[in-house]
Amino acid sequence: MRTFFNRKEDIVSEAIDGLVAASGGRVVRFSPDSSARVVVRADWQKTEVAIISGGGSGHEPSHAGLVADGLLTAAVCGEVFASPSVDAVLGAIVAVTGEAGCLLVVKNYTGDRLNFGLAAEKAKALGLNVRMIIVADDLATSGSQQPRGVAGTLFIHKVAGHLARAGASLDAIFTAVDQARRSVITIGAARDTCTLPGNPKQERIGPDEVEIGLGIHGEAGVEIAVPTSSGELIDDLVSRLIAHLKADSAYALIFNNLGGLSNLECLVLFSDLMKSALRPKIRYIAGPASAMTALDMPGFSISLLEMTPERDTFLTSPTESPYFPQFVRLRDVAPITATQVPSDTKVVASTDSAVRAVVEIVIATCLGMEAEINALDAKVGDGDTGSTFAGAARSVANVIDTLPFADGAALFSALSDLKRKAMGGSSGVLFAIMMARSAEAYRQSKNWTAALSEGLEAMQQYGGAKPGDRTMIDALAPALAALARGEDIASAATLARQGADATARMTRANAGRSSYLDARSLQGTVDPGAEAIARIFAAVAAVDGSGNRNQ
Amino acid sequence: MRTFFNRKEDIVSEAIDGLVAASGGRVVRFSPDSSARVVVRADWQKTEVAIISGGGSGHEPSHAGLVADGLLTAAVCGEVFASPSVDAVLGAIVAVTGEAGCLLVVKNYTGDRLNFGLAAEKAKALGLNVRMIIVADDLATSGSQQPRGVAGTLFIHKVAGHLARAGASLDAIFTAVDQARRSVITIGAARDTCTLPGNPKQERIGPDEVEIGLGIHGEAGVEIAVPTSSGELIDDLVSRLIAHLKADSAYALIFNNLGGLSNLECLVLFSDLMKSALRPKIRYIAGPASAMTALDMPGFSISLLEMTPERDTFLTSPTESPYFPQFVRLRDVAPITATQVPSDTKVVASTDSAVRAVVEIVIATCLGMEAEINALDAKVGDGDTGSTFAGAARSVANVIDTLPFADGAALFSALSDLKRKAMGGSSGVLFAIMMARSAEAYRQSKNWTAALSEGLEAMQQYGGAKPGDRTMIDALAPALAALARGEDIASAATLARQGADATARMTRANAGRSSYLDARSLQGTVDPGAEAIARIFAAVAAVDGSGNRNQ
Repeated sequence: MRTFFNRKEDIVSEAIDGLVAASGGRVVRFSPDSSARVVVRADWQKTEVAIISGGGSGHEPSHAGLVADGLLTAAVCGEVFASPSVDAVLGAIVAVTGEAGCLLVVKNYTGDRLNFGLAAEKAKALGLNVRMIIVADDLATSGSQQPRGVAGTLFIHKVAGHLARAGASLDAIFTAVDQARRSVITIGAARDTCTLPGNPKQERIGPDEVEIGLGIHGEAGVEIAVPTSSGELIDDLVSRLIAHLKADSAYALIFNNLGGLSNLECLVLFSDLMKSALRPKIRYIAGPASAMTALDMPGFSISLLEMTPERDTFLTSPTESPYFPQFVRLRDVAPITATQVPSDTKVVASTDSAVRAVVEIVIATCLGMEAEINALDAKVGDGDTGSTFAGAARSVANVIDTLPFADGAALFSALSDLKRKAMGGSSGVLFAIMMARSAEAYRQSKNWTAALSEGLEAMQQYGGAKPGDRTMIDALAPALAALARGEDIASAATLARQGADATARMTRANAGRSSYLDARSLQGTVDPGAEAIARIFAAVAAVDGSGNRNQ
Repeated sequence: MRTFFNRKEDIVSEAIDGLVAASGGRVVRFSPDSSARVVVRADWQKTEVAIISGGGSGHEPSHAGLVADGLLTAAVCGEVFASPSVDAVLGAIVAVTGEAGCLLVVKNYTGDRLNFGLAAEKAKALGLNVRMIIVADDLATSGSQQPRGVAGTLFIHKVAGHLARAGASLDAIFTAVDQARRSVITIGAARDTCTLPGNPKQERIGPDEVEIGLGIHGEAGVEIAVPTSSGELIDDLVSRLIAHLKADSAYALIFNNLGGLSNLECLVLFSDLMKSALRPKIRYIAGPASAMTALDMPGFSISLLEMTPERDTFLTSPTESPYFPQFVRLRDVAPITATQVPSDTKVVASTDSAVRAVVEIVIATCLGMEAEINALDAKVGDGDTGSTFAGAARSVANVIDTLPFADGAALFSALSDLKRKAMGGSSGVLFAIMMARSAEAYRQSKNWTAALSEGLEAMQQYGGAKPGDRTMIDALAPALAALARGEDIASAATLARQGADATARMTRANAGRSSYLDARSLQGTVDPGAEAIARIFAAVAAVDGSGNRNQ
């Protein structure tokens, strides 16, 4: 589906149902069988000035999502990108306006101006005290007689909502927003158009192009730019904005996602903005947030309002809308310097010839089997398992005279660091995890077998593989279990071999790279990791504890 | 640009800069010259259990946006869709973990499991109390040994963050989230893939198709569906979810926008969900909101957590994150019935022969000039201005015996209603506004000229045109001004004619349909609306006040 909806004519009404449900009772709507799609604060008592806004739908969360204490009293929702009817607006006015009167906040589009305007005149004829403010903040069309009203309107909603909640009179609110709207400017940019429900997307904007100065209804921008970076685009927009700012004034900024831009991109753009020439002029920020969208348009807009001491309060007071971005005071916060964590445990060399002998035989085995294990892996993987083991062995061999053989915990820690670096990828981290846990366990128990068994457990816990998944664990687990039961190394080696051989009959690998292969490719081939483990155990079993080679 | 960024390798670091700036000092980051991209609560004192999460970037606001009191203590951010390094995670753990210990919340991906896992083991070796929970909530991969961790992880963040703030011990928190994660399930659907920064978009999903059971990294869904409506899609997803729910349990639901879906669509889908078989099972809802995104993917996911009495508190307590959707208790709120506002003012017929005579001459003039004015409009518009005036005139003629000629205010109101209906479009509303304001003004002043002048002012205020814009106002304004100065109707008619003629020299129309035409098309042609007004004034001037035709 190009867009998710049921019947085109029900989109707005259903979206309002969704919004009302999601509010958990905070807002209510006019009955859906009425043609008036109006959302109203559930707790509204008509004691303060009512603030009504609205217009065409497709700008969600504007305007119905802004119905909340401290913001809008009611929103009147037209069809997608079409003005609501005069009767709908009038119905909303009549429903929410008390003695204190009502302010209509209207974006500067002919349909909205006229329909809200006639409704206002009709409401006056009914004896209601109604005023209307028209917001025309779009910088891209500011040269025309009728600049568009876009996301800067959110400033006006906030100022009006704050003052209404504070009990200001309609005339006082009108004066405040009338002053505010004169200093609001907005510029937008997008890398693609939006998708109208049920329509194919217009392929208007080329892959390298960005439209600058577009509207919030998919209107084409006034200009096409071909920026090579987000920073270049931001600098372009900033240069347009900055020409309209007063030298000595500070500003509040709304960074508005037009709906379809990833949050990641929005944050990069916002970071560019914070590095731009505009930064010193900005005192308050709201967003990046999807506050006044153009359906799913992958674009954004930047809106500015000149600050005055009283507007500080107007903007920063909280609202009950979960969708309206909170204004925060911009602060330069120094990053913190991370505590240097030594990535390697400090190693103090010590000797234990028996332990060293085992390590040496493991190294020799790994080096000796490199080609054969690689060949085995070539059948079921990418042919490098042998080299991975050999690489790890070489890295240990290179530093063997510095290893702390007399201190099991330190030895496991050192091996953990070495394996992680030498093996790389998942298997390196897996062995590093095993050795790190073994280090801790050895510190507690001073028992090699118990330490390795706990290490294996950590490997399973974090790696997610268990016996039967066709991994080296199929050899390692039975061998270590045997040692834990008090059996000798020969018995462990036998079980490791049996475990490895059994992997040839496992036709599904549940973990690791072989999990992408089908049964036929796996059948009859021993898992290379398990084979390597079996050979290591066999080699260790072939020498006795004193380092002498057994028969 | 396919995506907005500067250098690919700087995307995540710059996005973190943007996030930190947007937080206004609520969060800080590790120094950008460190390879560790870590965001930490600025007010963190290490007195409670630290909650750390993270993983690949591209899921914003997860996870850095969730760093806030009541949620995460720190977030560790990898490259886009790639796990952060062991050192980065370890650095975060060391930076924020105090006596109370630290919980790592990890989504079930191999890289995250291993890197967070090794960091946890290394942190333990440093003497820190660290535990790790792995979330694997994806229903689409639940049959595999390693189901993915997706948006249901947000439940775990919330539960852990709540308990940590409440001072619970690490073990108590671990137990609570370990129980919770077992009952979390999520299913996603998308109508298109996401755009990786710097890469062309994969054209995988056909225009009629929806992928079901996709991951949050652009992984393909487990199934392609071809739903014909959003309701059908929701019912499909609900049937998959509902099979896993307990008969007697209630659930909390997160409706997560994957990043690129319009809010309008999200609300329609959410409304479908509220009508689905799942509705009776749901007690709490959060969203629709972009909480764990897959860059700009136009899709969504539904996550469920089984509720228990204590989880009510865990979920609904507030957090300081502006990005985490607040859980609200679902309520069925009846819509309100809008007060019926009579769209027409009630009319009581009355007689005043002089007034009736003027109205009749206006009607006759409008009917007589229909063809000529249409012809004029054909040159600069769509050729129907004459018919618009004539239609309005006919509608008045049809009810002329019922009009309240003796009551100016009532007469203007009646004309307002008639013109709005008969004329249609912008011009109908504009005349209706003029007449509605004239009605109010007449009620105050009992003066025809003053009433019409105020009406004209309203027309300009809401319509946005002013003298010189090549509209009927160019004839109307000077004529009414003359009457207001006490000049007679003949003088007014002369000025209307001069005003109309002057429009032929106006080479730019600033309002109305002609504003789309260039100077050459307009030059020499009188504006049809102004011409109509001039003719009406001429006709009225041609009869005297007593209804007799002047010479």
